[in-house]
Amino acid sequence: MAGQFECKPIGFVLSPFKEKGDAPSQGRENEQSSQIVIFPEYAKGLDGLSPGRQIFVICWFDRSDRNVIEVHPRGNPAAPLTGVFNTRSPARPNPVSLTLVIIESIKDNVITVCGLDALNETPVIDIKPYSRGIDESKQFLKTE
Amino acid sequence: MAGQFECKPIGFVLSPFKEKGDAPSQGRENEQSSQIVIFPEYAKGLDGLSPGRQIFVICWFDRSDRNVIEVHPRGNPAAPLTGVFNTRSPARPNPVSLTLVIIESIKDNVITVCGLDALNETPVIDIKPYSRGIDESKQFLKTE
Repeated sequence: MAGQFECKPIGFVLSPFKEKGDAPSQGRENEQSSQIVIFPEYAKGLDGLSPGRQIFVICWFDRSDRNVIEVHPRGNPAAPLTGVFNTRSPARPNPVSLTLVIIESIKDNVITVCGLDALNETPVIDIKPYSRGIDESKQFLKTE
Repeated sequence: MAGQFECKPIGFVLSPFKEKGDAPSQGRENEQSSQIVIFPEYAKGLDGLSPGRQIFVICWFDRSDRNVIEVHPRGNPAAPLTGVFNTRSPARPNPVSLTLVIIESIKDNVITVCGLDALNETPVIDIKPYSRGIDESKQFLKTE
């Protein structure tokens, strides 16, 4: 097993959130649109996606601290410390984000989405379509 | 924006799927248990997780082809080619997987889960708790 892997951006985010503190804690908490610009060499990978579809956008939060193992949830110092893998904090050993958004439009290699929580120029590393069969919670179980 | 990023494993999978072809297309399609062994230096990051919780496990599918942009969904040659970002194929520019699983037990740095679709010894790069508020589909929208 290799010690580490080279993760390469497939594109980047254009968003109204320019600096830490501008972005909402979660994308769902805003109705701002963002653009995802896919590099031309990966643009054919978008074939089949269409407006109204829900996709997981996976970014590399390049401005996040990678040395965090425990956090106060949602940055609230009154909340007890918990393991970072028990939170959605952007600060974590691999600053991989996961945000479910709705496609508003696609034009060539640019996807406009609603609900993304990434800072402007954040690298995007993957896009996956939401699939009810595999991504839907088993409701009777504990979620949070 | 950096050209690439160093992604480091936080642990690895112990699973009954030893080779490509052994693993189910999707974890939901099996009821096998797998273990996730978290390296000791990250083990405190698990604090707060408990049996019955649902978590997204994000792996680095290190045996997948990274040069794939279009695929036949589910490897079926009769299905028309589509963009890889419109599928959950493990072969993609960054072989990042996303699987929602259920925690069966946690003992120290080892989590036993049900529903993982990773080959044995697959590196794990992140774990995120499922959160209904941000991960649940907006049902009225198109999903697949």
